[in-house]
Amino acid sequence: MTTAAPGLLERARAGEKRAVARLLSVVENDEPGAAEAVSALYPLTGHAQIVGVTGPPGGGKSTLVNRLAGAYREHTGRVAVVAVDPSSPFTGGALLGDRIRMRDRFLDEGLFIRSMASRGHSGGLARATSRIVNVLDALGYGVVLVETVGVGQEEVALVRVADTVCLVTVPGLGDDIQAIKAGVLEIADVLVVNKADRPGADETARDLSQMLKLGKSRTEWVPPIVRTSASTGEGVDLLIGAIEKHRAWSATSGERERRRREAARAEVEQLLREALVRRLRDRVGSDGVERAVARVADRSIDPYAAVEELLRE
Amino acid sequence: MTTAAPGLLERARAGEKRAVARLLSVVENDEPGAAEAVSALYPLTGHAQIVGVTGPPGGGKSTLVNRLAGAYREHTGRVAVVAVDPSSPFTGGALLGDRIRMRDRFLDEGLFIRSMASRGHSGGLARATSRIVNVLDALGYGVVLVETVGVGQEEVALVRVADTVCLVTVPGLGDDIQAIKAGVLEIADVLVVNKADRPGADETARDLSQMLKLGKSRTEWVPPIVRTSASTGEGVDLLIGAIEKHRAWSATSGERERRRREAARAEVEQLLREALVRRLRDRVGSDGVERAVARVADRSIDPYAAVEELLRE
Repeated sequence: MTTAAPGLLERARAGEKRAVARLLSVVENDEPGAAEAVSALYPLTGHAQIVGVTGPPGGGKSTLVNRLAGAYREHTGRVAVVAVDPSSPFTGGALLGDRIRMRDRFLDEGLFIRSMASRGHSGGLARATSRIVNVLDALGYGVVLVETVGVGQEEVALVRVADTVCLVTVPGLGDDIQAIKAGVLEIADVLVVNKADRPGADETARDLSQMLKLGKSRTEWVPPIVRTSASTGEGVDLLIGAIEKHRAWSATSGERERRRREAARAEVEQLLREALVRRLRDRVGSDGVERAVARVADRSIDPYAAVEELLRE
Repeated sequence: MTTAAPGLLERARAGEKRAVARLLSVVENDEPGAAEAVSALYPLTGHAQIVGVTGPPGGGKSTLVNRLAGAYREHTGRVAVVAVDPSSPFTGGALLGDRIRMRDRFLDEGLFIRSMASRGHSGGLARATSRIVNVLDALGYGVVLVETVGVGQEEVALVRVADTVCLVTVPGLGDDIQAIKAGVLEIADVLVVNKADRPGADETARDLSQMLKLGKSRTEWVPPIVRTSASTGEGVDLLIGAIEKHRAWSATSGERERRRREAARAEVEQLLREALVRRLRDRVGSDGVERAVARVADRSIDPYAAVEELLRE
């Protein structure tokens, strides 16, 4: 490994938080040594249990993840939380405020917390997340919780790294629960109705259950609906039970292998695309691409024709 | 043009709704003749005013877009609405329910409405949207309203086709308004506080104004904050005024040209990536890629090494 600091990998593997943070930055920002670090660590991956937590804003996900992290810490070795905020490609740090709530946990040497924003991940936030998760996996974190806000396409790509995906809803989201439900059935392994002490929890659970019955399932797994109240901790043990049940089913049914292969495919295809574009840019030069873009912008050539020209050069 | 139906383009240009819908399907699904249609239409684009409307779920965007469409119809020629639902890559049609509210407008021959879901857009929903918008532009729709739910990265890519982006918030979104605001300043040209008759509207407007002051602006344009009540129609005229003001500023400041060049760049780069991957697949075969993926999945090779091997072949 050719990272700036020799011994970084060893110190990170020993669980030294500062070294872990530094190593993750090297990998996340593609600093010198990133590819070597990923290569060196890759054979060590595949052991962590990766749990995704997603859902619309306002669902209390951060508090719930905080609870889950605490609970897993009681019977697992080291636990990591990766909090991803895809809300903007420009400004980062929105989730940091939430993280402050976890301040008490910062003192726990066995718990590692990482916030990620979209800023500057040219290869896509999903790929950066998957690399971060792989590094934590290789470093010996037994459970990695990946938390993300939203239910868009970007978030679906994000949770693709997870072995089990928990989708967190709350009572009273209004009409737009429809939009969430449309995507729920396919990505969620466990459905969580958080803030279950609020009015409307019964209706929300019933709606979800109805939608599950109407939707066609990819597999024989039927996502359980778990009620929690993250602020009091109620139901968190039930949620962990549901996650563990899904984990056991995944391992025996082949679902886990199928997902890991999908994740590998996404990663290989993404790297391939980047490498191919880099090669083309080296050949035709940035000027060549810019000239084509300018002609497309002023409508003197259509995009298909422009690409054909670039490929011929 | 080699589309199945000869004369389709002509009938679509004459404003025949059925022909427009069919042509959009050809282009959206990349059916035979899609590339030819895009090429034939491309020189005719660049005339429509494209208005993006985005924001978190529950903001009343559909009702607002309905109002805007009605108002624009009164002093523009044909108007089109493209409602994009990025909430799931699998299940479509979530927004169709909302569209039913626009039933009265279905009878208006000068108004065209199109719903799009993520399903099956391998090239990305943003690209499919941009192609649909280009076709509508070429067909002579003077105003194209692009409506999308959410404030994630995917949505930011979606609204990149717009000349003016309206971001719709509502009072009382809670803590998570932070996450929205983080991205607001960079993508929004007009800020809308909808459901402005609800309690908390003043606070929301004040918060937004505060955030605008703190953020650094890309340009000298300061996004106005407009209060609307889509259900009663109040404030819609003010919103149209704000959009028109931004349009005038964009045209004189060069912002409009800058955005159109950015859109062209995104389109060219996306097509390039697809073409390059297709070429590689032709060369090494799908089997070759699959074998590499399988080895990455079982950890016998890391993704970087796999890609290098594929490129060498």
